Amino acid sequence: MSSTWGTNIELSIFGESHGDAIGIVIGNLPAGIVLDFDDISLQMKRRAPGFHPLTTPRKEKDEIRIVSGVKDGITTGAPLCAMIENTNQHSHDYDILKECMRPGHADYSAFVKYNGFNDVRGGGHFSGRLTAPIVFAGTIARQILKQKGIYVGSHILSIKDAYDEHFDVHVNEDDLQSLISEPTLNKDAYVNMQKVIEEAKINGNSVGGKIECAIVNVPAGVGSPFFDSLESRISSLMFAIPSVKSISFGLSDDITALMGSEANDSYYYDNDKVLTSSNNNGGILGGISNGMPIVFNVGIKPTSSISMKQSTINVKTKENVTLELQGRHDPCIVLRARVVVESMAALALLDMVGY
Amino acid sequence: MSSTWGTNIELSIFGESHGDAIGIVIGNLPAGIVLDFDDISLQMKRRAPGFHPLTTPRKEKDEIRIVSGVKDGITTGAPLCAMIENTNQHSHDYDILKECMRPGHADYSAFVKYNGFNDVRGGGHFSGRLTAPIVFAGTIARQILKQKGIYVGSHILSIKDAYDEHFDVHVNEDDLQSLISEPTLNKDAYVNMQKVIEEAKINGNSVGGKIECAIVNVPAGVGSPFFDSLESRISSLMFAIPSVKSISFGLSDDITALMGSEANDSYYYDNDKVLTSSNNNGGILGGISNGMPIVFNVGIKPTSSISMKQSTINVKTKENVTLELQGRHDPCIVLRARVVVESMAALALLDMVGY
Amino acid sequence: MSSTWGTNIELSIFGESHGDAIGIVIGNLPAGIVLDFDDISLQMKRRAPGFHPLTTPRKEKDEIRIVSGVKDGITTGAPLCAMIENTNQHSHDYDILKECMRPGHADYSAFVKYNGFNDVRGGGHFSGRLTAPIVFAGTIARQILKQKGIYVGSHILSIKDAYDEHFDVHVNEDDLQSLISEPTLNKDAYVNMQKVIEEAKINGNSVGGKIECAIVNVPAGVGSPFFDSLESRISSLMFAIPSVKSISFGLSDDITALMGSEANDSYYYDNDKVLTSSNNNGGILGGISNGMPIVFNVGIKPTSSISMKQSTINVKTKENVTLELQGRHDPCIVLRARVVVESMAALALLDMVGY
Amino acid sequence: MSSTWGTNIELSIFGESHGDAIGIVIGNLPAGIVLDFDDISLQMKRRAPGFHPLTTPRKEKDEIRIVSGVKDGITTGAPLCAMIENTNQHSHDYDILKECMRPGHADYSAFVKYNGFNDVRGGGHFSGRLTAPIVFAGTIARQILKQKGIYVGSHILSIKDAYDEHFDVHVNEDDLQSLISEPTLNKDAYVNMQKVIEEAKINGNSVGGKIECAIVNVPAGVGSPFFDSLESRISSLMFAIPSVKSISFGLSDDITALMGSEANDSYYYDNDKVLTSSNNNGGILGGISNGMPIVFNVGIKPTSSISMKQSTINVKTKENVTLELQGRHDPCIVLRARVVVESMAALALLDMVGY
Repeated sequence: MSSTWGTNIELSIFGESHGDAIGIVIGNLPAGIVLDFDDISLQMKRRAPGFHPLTTPRKEKDEIRIVSGVKDGITTGAPLCAMIENTNQHSHDYDILKECMRPGHADYSAFVKYNGFNDVRGGGHFSGRLTAPIVFAGTIARQILKQKGIYVGSHILSIKDAYDEHFDVHVNEDDLQSLISEPTLNKDAYVNMQKVIEEAKINGNSVGGKIECAIVNVPAGVGSPFFDSLESRISSLMFAIPSVKSISFGLSDDITALMGSEANDSYYYDNDKVLTSSNNNGGILGGISNGMPIVFNVGIKPTSSISMKQSTINVKTKENVTLELQGRHDPCIVLRARVVVESMAALALLDMVGY
Repeated sequence: MSSTWGTNIELSIFGESHGDAIGIVIGNLPAGIVLDFDDISLQMKRRAPGFHPLTTPRKEKDEIRIVSGVKDGITTGAPLCAMIENTNQHSHDYDILKECMRPGHADYSAFVKYNGFNDVRGGGHFSGRLTAPIVFAGTIARQILKQKGIYVGSHILSIKDAYDEHFDVHVNEDDLQSLISEPTLNKDAYVNMQKVIEEAKINGNSVGGKIECAIVNVPAGVGSPFFDSLESRISSLMFAIPSVKSISFGLSDDITALMGSEANDSYYYDNDKVLTSSNNNGGILGGISNGMPIVFNVGIKPTSSISMKQSTINVKTKENVTLELQGRHDPCIVLRARVVVESMAALALLDMVGY
Repeated sequence: MSSTWGTNIELSIFGESHGDAIGIVIGNLPAGIVLDFDDISLQMKRRAPGFHPLTTPRKEKDEIRIVSGVKDGITTGAPLCAMIENTNQHSHDYDILKECMRPGHADYSAFVKYNGFNDVRGGGHFSGRLTAPIVFAGTIARQILKQKGIYVGSHILSIKDAYDEHFDVHVNEDDLQSLISEPTLNKDAYVNMQKVIEEAKINGNSVGGKIECAIVNVPAGVGSPFFDSLESRISSLMFAIPSVKSISFGLSDDITALMGSEANDSYYYDNDKVLTSSNNNGGILGGISNGMPIVFNVGIKPTSSISMKQSTINVKTKENVTLELQGRHDPCIVLRARVVVESMAALALLDMVGY
Repeated sequence: MSSTWGTNIELSIFGESHGDAIGIVIGNLPAGIVLDFDDISLQMKRRAPGFHPLTTPRKEKDEIRIVSGVKDGITTGAPLCAMIENTNQHSHDYDILKECMRPGHADYSAFVKYNGFNDVRGGGHFSGRLTAPIVFAGTIARQILKQKGIYVGSHILSIKDAYDEHFDVHVNEDDLQSLISEPTLNKDAYVNMQKVIEEAKINGNSVGGKIECAIVNVPAGVGSPFFDSLESRISSLMFAIPSVKSISFGLSDDITALMGSEANDSYYYDNDKVLTSSNNNGGILGGISNGMPIVFNVGIKPTSSISMKQSTINVKTKENVTLELQGRHDPCIVLRARVVVESMAALALLDMVGY
């Protein structure tokens, strides 16, 4: 029942959407890391609403306030606490949410767990806003990994049934770098995806999709068999992202559709370097990296908030009711979620690699 | 880099395929649990080789020796150590495995991590044999969960492209109970699956597939947002199973292919009981159970050991080589893996529910 | 290397003395706890400087700001983050502390660990100020324990060689309650202690002492053998308090000075209640509570900051130097430390008892 | 409630005195460590009964069986499980122990915690025998530390009121090495200690004492402030040793009896090496090593098993009764406990230093 995570790096998340502030404590960071604040701003913006066309026009001023652990822009080695103060949150009538459980949201499961005492305004602690401090933490992890030559990046693999191609088997840091400004590998794929999102938006509906993420230049030998397999550690953080419902490792659409002779990635020496000719195992064997890019994709469900009428229950009156949500919602959060997935991937990997 | 797992229940796994013994220490079990040894035998058999047609004819005498923590068949509250002594393992020539890295296996990633000191005989610590003590531990977890009315079961969802149907949205304990003797929900589906496996076997090749697992009668309110979401905890154990490469929560083939209006499971009162009309979220919202069956499927890659010739490297000579593996292998481990998936599910859930 | 602690309750501490703020995140609190803010104020005051005669006249405005996890005075079940903003800290010349290592302080060990990047102003993350958020967290733990009838209290057992008597073997909640306004069991003892402190103060020197702490009404059966013994868990938190250098369990001055026949606390039935006639084991046997008061004392070293000249090193010039510290210091922190010891005791016990 | 411990090294202990076997799983050991089995035998013997004059003449055949994690005498990197099979344990009449609670033992606290299901034969899981696998694990830790130049040793500081002198402020590895064959620094001290033990033995009584332990050549900068202070980590393992009731860091008899000007250890340069002229803080400041020897002493209570008549309760009849224990007991376990304390110290330090 932990709100903390990690062995080498330690994360402790806090905050509620319409509370005073949201934030994160990052423990066990090495001292002497010179933070790149431009990079932090860039990554935070990638997640912020209103940045992408087709995302909610709602503005959040995600201004990071570093409370501890940094002096003169350099980490001190003490736990780094970073906060985003919640200013100007309109806590208009949320009373309905104390009674009517929104389908697809955590309202009902949280209502039971917290006995009705949870803060429901804006989703409370379950809000997607909580991913903002995660991006902050993940960006620091990326900066530390970069010093080891390790890079993380992603593209949108699919929006509903509109698909991009997979990463190349030898995806490298330059490929990942260029994806900061591009959402997909194939530009046409994104055109189709936009159509799918726009149609959902017009209908007050929503769509989901998959994000394919790669971590390149990870040396062979990182990870463990069994409980601390790379897959276990990465997946545990991916499923900490609200709305993620699936994860699949490897470059194939589905490794279970292959024959063993295809699924087994053949090794070969390229000069002294050990490579595989395919990467259906996503760079991980026995829970341990084999030196190939670590590749996986996560499935993000359609945004739970939709404008269409929905059937649900009122837990106060104990009646079946119809609910119609107000407000402007993201018809698809996949675009904004890319940097969250990359951030979690960086945190998971840094925790395994160590400093 | 942990070989231990859990908060309420504590697992510590040990052993190498051809070493002295393999086993597990289960800490923090409550005292006074009367173990059902018939059930333990039954579940162990479901995993044992030679039990299913189409599995390896190799025999392993998986006789459990309880070393501590049980007296007169009842748990004492002290850590329970259970072992399987390794008798009559033919450690014939494994020298080739110290040099030639089998594709799809952990050979190379382990070679790098352990600097060549890992025990390669029979796969060493990476062997599928290590799942035998996990089934033992998981069976105890099931017995404890059963006292709370909670049941775990599974069926084969697919072997390569041969598919079974999904669980019903209201799958219950009787459905799960009957799956102990049946591999699929739809008998015809299994006929097709067998054909796929047989064909692979004839060619010295292998196939994988998906297992759909359900946990029923879990009360709403179990789990946590973020790092200890039910999805995070369950997935971390599923990826501790060798060969598992994907996990997907929910009853749909792929939640990202749905519209939001479909993905949002509508609530309704059935008398005083809260139910949903679909279960695309697999009984989990915000990382917390909502009272519906917890449902997920895991993808298991084709068995890595195949008889066909494969290209790989010799790490001693640093040359590209061709490898041809001897011995009789499972053309498909999905059948035997069902009880492993169920066991891990029981352990994950018990850890979250507590005693 | 963790800045987090706990299984049932989770603590994550952050902040530097002269940074933006100090604080704590308390994870895994149950929802629905109605906080008693008067009690919080009272306990915070017991730690605050300037409250006791003979403590530093320096004022710190320890105003707690609850950032998350509480709504309308009631816990929401989300992580509770509480901060104390650092206002008006005079960061006058601390440059000397970057070079001259104060004896008895963490300056040198921190300098090496953090490679000189640690914030030295006011002791940075090592400052006794960090105990303020711990008292806040501990007070909440006390309030939860109180609902179970469990109480924590303490008295000053000694200041240097001025000793109070030990707790009575049947110390109860009323005894502990009356110690909120009294520093010692025996009033004369405190008169002597004050003399010792005053003399140290006049000479620009400092003294330490021992605090005896009791937790009463703990049911038998709490704790574990070995790694999670009650002694292990309590001591791990006591040594997290700056300046604590020893801990001893039981009511005797030193159990190693007794014969076995004396050290073994004899059991007897008092009606249906099991009691012991002495409590030399401090209510703990085999790491588990036996139902008697849990009693231990911790030794707090003399305040490291003294006005007298001291020999030390300058790590920049690599020379042996003489250091004379300016400013007003506590000649003895034992008085203010009582509530910190009690808070940590409450946190340790709550973590073991659970909710 | 954990039976596991550690971050870098992972310990999982199991076994009951008269069960099948006792043992330990040591996870996360690096591969390639060549074990020194002579050293393991030597250290195991130091703990074994019957080895010291004045210890119980009872023989235990503490033959270590390594079950996993070692091949050809070298660690494989997989979890190392080591067991001691329990042969020829006379489980004569232990029924009395199910009813009559021995004072000083864990009988009653365990009876309540485990609801009477705990194995009482020979003390079950609470038996001092469980320290045998700990010595095994600790000896491996010592061997790894030795490769870093770090040494652990101890002497008996006191038996009841018979005292040895403290370690010298500059205690080094040679001093520690010579203590393998000597129990005290001052030979006369041991003569007095023997008299005290013999007298207790004659009377069917028992005595306790203190063990002073030193870890030398630990570099400055190891440890953490707050929850993972060196004191917290070391103490948590010391209190995992049955019968340890106190711990005190530093070379003085009692740091609280000193003035601040005495307690502050002055730094000076000895050529380029940083030393302190006294070591009242035991080589630890702010929870972090300062490069001086880490020194602490632990208090071990008199052996709980004595032959004298004792008052206690019968939990079955709910009556006050008189108990007279049969059998031959150690009049003092301090002699045998030295190597246990050293082993735990090595494990705690290795966990902090890492590999």
